[in-house]
Amino acid sequence: MARRVAGKRTLDLMEAIRTRIATRALAAGDRLPSVRSFAATMGVSPSTVVDAYDRLAAEGLIRAQRGSGFFVSGNALQPLRLSDSQSPCLRAVDPFWVSRQSLDSDEAVLKPGCGWLPADWMPNEALRRAMRALARGADETLAYYGSTRGSPALRRILLNRLAEEGMEAQPAQLILAGSGTQALDLVCRFVLRPGDTVLIDDPCYFNFRALLGAHQVKIMGVPYTPSGPDVQAFEALLNAERPRIYITNSALHNPTGATLSPQSAHRLLKLAVQHDLIIVEDDIFADFEPSPSTRLATLDGLDRVIRIGSFSKTLSASVRCGYVAARADWIEGLVDLQVATNFGGPSPVAAELIAHVLAGGGYRKHMDEVRQRLVRARREVAARLHGLGMEPWLMPRGGFNLWCRLPEGLDSTQIAQSAREQGIVLAPGNVFSVSHGAGSFFRFNVAHTLDPRIYRILADVMKDVSAKGASRALSTLPGPE
Amino acid sequence: MARRVAGKRTLDLMEAIRTRIATRALAAGDRLPSVRSFAATMGVSPSTVVDAYDRLAAEGLIRAQRGSGFFVSGNALQPLRLSDSQSPCLRAVDPFWVSRQSLDSDEAVLKPGCGWLPADWMPNEALRRAMRALARGADETLAYYGSTRGSPALRRILLNRLAEEGMEAQPAQLILAGSGTQALDLVCRFVLRPGDTVLIDDPCYFNFRALLGAHQVKIMGVPYTPSGPDVQAFEALLNAERPRIYITNSALHNPTGATLSPQSAHRLLKLAVQHDLIIVEDDIFADFEPSPSTRLATLDGLDRVIRIGSFSKTLSASVRCGYVAARADWIEGLVDLQVATNFGGPSPVAAELIAHVLAGGGYRKHMDEVRQRLVRARREVAARLHGLGMEPWLMPRGGFNLWCRLPEGLDSTQIAQSAREQGIVLAPGNVFSVSHGAGSFFRFNVAHTLDPRIYRILADVMKDVSAKGASRALSTLPGPE
Repeated sequence: MARRVAGKRTLDLMEAIRTRIATRALAAGDRLPSVRSFAATMGVSPSTVVDAYDRLAAEGLIRAQRGSGFFVSGNALQPLRLSDSQSPCLRAVDPFWVSRQSLDSDEAVLKPGCGWLPADWMPNEALRRAMRALARGADETLAYYGSTRGSPALRRILLNRLAEEGMEAQPAQLILAGSGTQALDLVCRFVLRPGDTVLIDDPCYFNFRALLGAHQVKIMGVPYTPSGPDVQAFEALLNAERPRIYITNSALHNPTGATLSPQSAHRLLKLAVQHDLIIVEDDIFADFEPSPSTRLATLDGLDRVIRIGSFSKTLSASVRCGYVAARADWIEGLVDLQVATNFGGPSPVAAELIAHVLAGGGYRKHMDEVRQRLVRARREVAARLHGLGMEPWLMPRGGFNLWCRLPEGLDSTQIAQSAREQGIVLAPGNVFSVSHGAGSFFRFNVAHTLDPRIYRILADVMKDVSAKGASRALSTLPGPE
Repeated sequence: MARRVAGKRTLDLMEAIRTRIATRALAAGDRLPSVRSFAATMGVSPSTVVDAYDRLAAEGLIRAQRGSGFFVSGNALQPLRLSDSQSPCLRAVDPFWVSRQSLDSDEAVLKPGCGWLPADWMPNEALRRAMRALARGADETLAYYGSTRGSPALRRILLNRLAEEGMEAQPAQLILAGSGTQALDLVCRFVLRPGDTVLIDDPCYFNFRALLGAHQVKIMGVPYTPSGPDVQAFEALLNAERPRIYITNSALHNPTGATLSPQSAHRLLKLAVQHDLIIVEDDIFADFEPSPSTRLATLDGLDRVIRIGSFSKTLSASVRCGYVAARADWIEGLVDLQVATNFGGPSPVAAELIAHVLAGGGYRKHMDEVRQRLVRARREVAARLHGLGMEPWLMPRGGFNLWCRLPEGLDSTQIAQSAREQGIVLAPGNVFSVSHGAGSFFRFNVAHTLDPRIYRILADVMKDVSAKGASRALSTLPGPE
C-alpha cells in the first residue's frame, strides 16, 4: 500500500519528539506519553498522534510494545539528525535539498537554483597568478598553521575595506574563519545554547535554517518586506519570544534581493538595544551592490551587531575563507573557540591567495564587469520568466538572485521535484521559509538561468504539474453511485 | 594584597558553577545556593565555597547582595567561555596556553613545546609543484565549492591508503573535513549533547580538552600506560560513568609517544561493544610509525570505531584538510552536518594540493627521511635533557614527541611561565592532564629542541625556580617570636 503523505500536524509532532530525543529530554527506554494525553497536550486529534508514533516507529526511533504503549528505542546511539533524508516525501522542503542537489550533481545538470556564479564569471586568472606567486613564497607560509586570528595581510586589507564603508574597526575586532558559514557557526556556538530562540527572516537563506538545526535552537521567522523585516512583527517577536540573536543579510537579502532601508535599520537597532538582542549581519553579497546601502554593523559601530562575510560569491568558493568583525572581547572568545574547534585560524595558504587577489588592481574591475553582466542577465531572465507567467517579487539592485512568484495554483516544491528528474536543480520557495509560506516562489540565479533548455523544460514541467493538479481535483469529486 | 592561588577544590567549585551558568542551568538573576547548603552538597568546607563565590564575583559572573546571598549577574550575554584568560594565576594549566603561545609568538621565539615540524623539514618543493599544477587546472576546480564529501581524487587516494593498512572502507564511509580538528569536532557534534560524558587519556593531546569544553560535556581521564590506557581503570569508568565516546591516539600517542598493544586494543574493543561505547581514533601520527601498529578502527572494521586523520603534521599545516572514516550511515549524517556548518566539504583547492603531493612519488621518500632525522633528533635531545636531570617516560618508536619527567620537586608550569619570559614556549605536563597529575612532566618536540640556547635557558630557569621553591619553603617555617 502506498504511504500517505504526512500532514503538517503529524510532521510537527514528529519533529517535537525527535527534538526531545536528540536533546535527551527523552532517553532510550523512556515511555512516550499515551496517545490520548499527548493529543490533549498538543491540541491535536488522537489519530494524528497515532500517525506520528507509527511513522517514528517505522523509522526505528521508537518502538511499540503491545499493550503498554510506545518507547524510545534501545539503540543508545541517536546521533544528531538534521535532514529529513529518511522521509522522501519531505525531500523538497528540507533546507538541505538545494545544497546537496546543487553541490553533488554532475556538470551535465543545469542549476538555476544554485547559489554561486558560473566558473567562467570568476576571476580565475587573478587566482592563478596568486597561486604562482604563493608557490614562490616562504617555507613558513606553506608549512605552518599561522596565527590564531589568521593571515595579517588579509586582515589589513579587510580593515581597510571596512574603513572605506565607514566602519572603523580595530585589529582586535577581526578574526578570519574557514568560510562565511564557519564564521556564522563560530558566532552561534559562542552565543547560543540549545533551547535558545533565534530570529531569522522569512524567507531567508536556507542554510541559516540548516545551521540553526545543528544548534538545536528554536527558530522564529519575521516576515520580510521589500525594505527589510516587518518592524512591527519584529518588535512583537522580541516581546513574545525574547530571542538572543537575529540573523540577516542587509544588502541584497537572500533570496529576495531586497535592501534594508535606512529607516528600518534605525528602528531595528533601537529595538535591539531595548531588548538586548545581538544582530548578526551576513554581508556576503556586499560587493554586488551598485552603491553601498545602510549597514546595521556600521550604524551600530560593531557594538551589538556582528558582521560576517566571505569571498565565495565574488572571488572563489574553492578557496574557502570568511571573517567576523565584532566587539574585541567577543573576538577574543572566538579565537579560543576557533583554536578548540579548528586548532588555529583558517588555512594561511587560502588567506594568502585571497589577499593576493584583493590586493591586485584587477578585483574592482572584475566586480564592475560582473555587476554589468548581472544587470543584463537579470533583465533577460525576468523577461523570459514573464513568458512563463512568473513575476519577480521585486527587481533587485544587484546580485544574482531573483525571487519569483509562480502563476496561481502551482506549487514550487512539486515543480522542483519534477524538474530534477529532467536534469534541472531549482530552489523552491519553501526551503527558504520557516513558516513554509513560500510555496508559490522560486529563487532563480540569473547567471545560471540563461540556457534556453531551462525554459523549455520548465514550461513542460509546469504544464504537467498543472494537469496533475487538475486531475487530482477532479478525482476527489464524488463519483457516480 | 597579593591574591592567593586558588586551591583545587575552589577551582572545581568555580568550574561547576561556570558550567551551570554556561548551560543556563543557572540563569541571570538566579540565586546561588547558600554557602552552608552548597558546602554540604559538595562535601567541602564553607570557606571553600566562600572563596569560590568571591572569586566568581571578582570575575563579574555573580554578584553579592548584602544580607541575601549571591546571584548570577544580570548581564544577559554570557557567551561560551573556554579559556581561563581572565585568571592569570591559571594561565599555564589552561589547555589553550600552549596553542596560543606557539601559534601567535613571533619567529624569534623558540618553540620546543609546539606540535609541528620545523618548516624546512616539510615537503615544500612538492607543495610548490602542486600549486603550479593547480594554477594550470580547470576553472571549475578554482571557482566552485566542490562536492559535499570533498575532492574525489583525494578520497580515492585515502581509500587506497586505508586498504594498504588492512582497512577495506567503501567510498560511502569517507568524508573530507577542513582539518583533523574539524573532523573531530564534526564527530563530536554528531554524537554528543551537553552533559554527556567523554573518556580521554590522562595525559592526552591538550586540544581534546579544549574542544570538549566547547561541547560542554563532562570529561573523565583514564590513566595512560606504556601499552595504552589502563584497561582495568577503563572498565571501571565505563561501569561508573557510562561515557558515550572515548577519544584516543593509538599509534604514537600524544603526548607520551606510546603505542597501543594488540592485547589492550582487543580488550578495549570488547569492552566498547559490551558498553555500547563509540571510539574515536585520531590517527594523525600514523605516517611517523616505522611499521604499522594495531589500530582499533582496523580491528573493529569501522563499526563502532571512527577514524580521523589529517596531513598537518607530515605535509602542510597551512593547507588545512582532514578526514573521517566511519560507518556509512554516520558519514551520511556528517555530510549534512558539514553542509550546515561549512556549506559543503573542505576547500577543493586545499584537497587537490594534498592529493597532488600524496600521489607524487616523493611523499614516501620524504617520510622515510623525516623518520630517520627524528631517530637522530630523539637520541640527541634525550641525551641533552638527561644532562639537565630530565628523563623520558619511554623512548617512542617514532614521531617528534618526548614526554619527560623533571627532577624531583620541580613544577613544569612554573618553569614554563619563567621560560616564556626568556623567549621559549614549553608544553608543561598539566595542559595534557585532566587530573592535573602531570605537573612534573614536559612534552618536548625533538625537532624543535636542537638549538643549544634552549638548554642554557632551561638550566637557568630550572635553577631559579628551584631556588625560589627552596626560599618559599624556608619562609613558611615559623619565624622567631
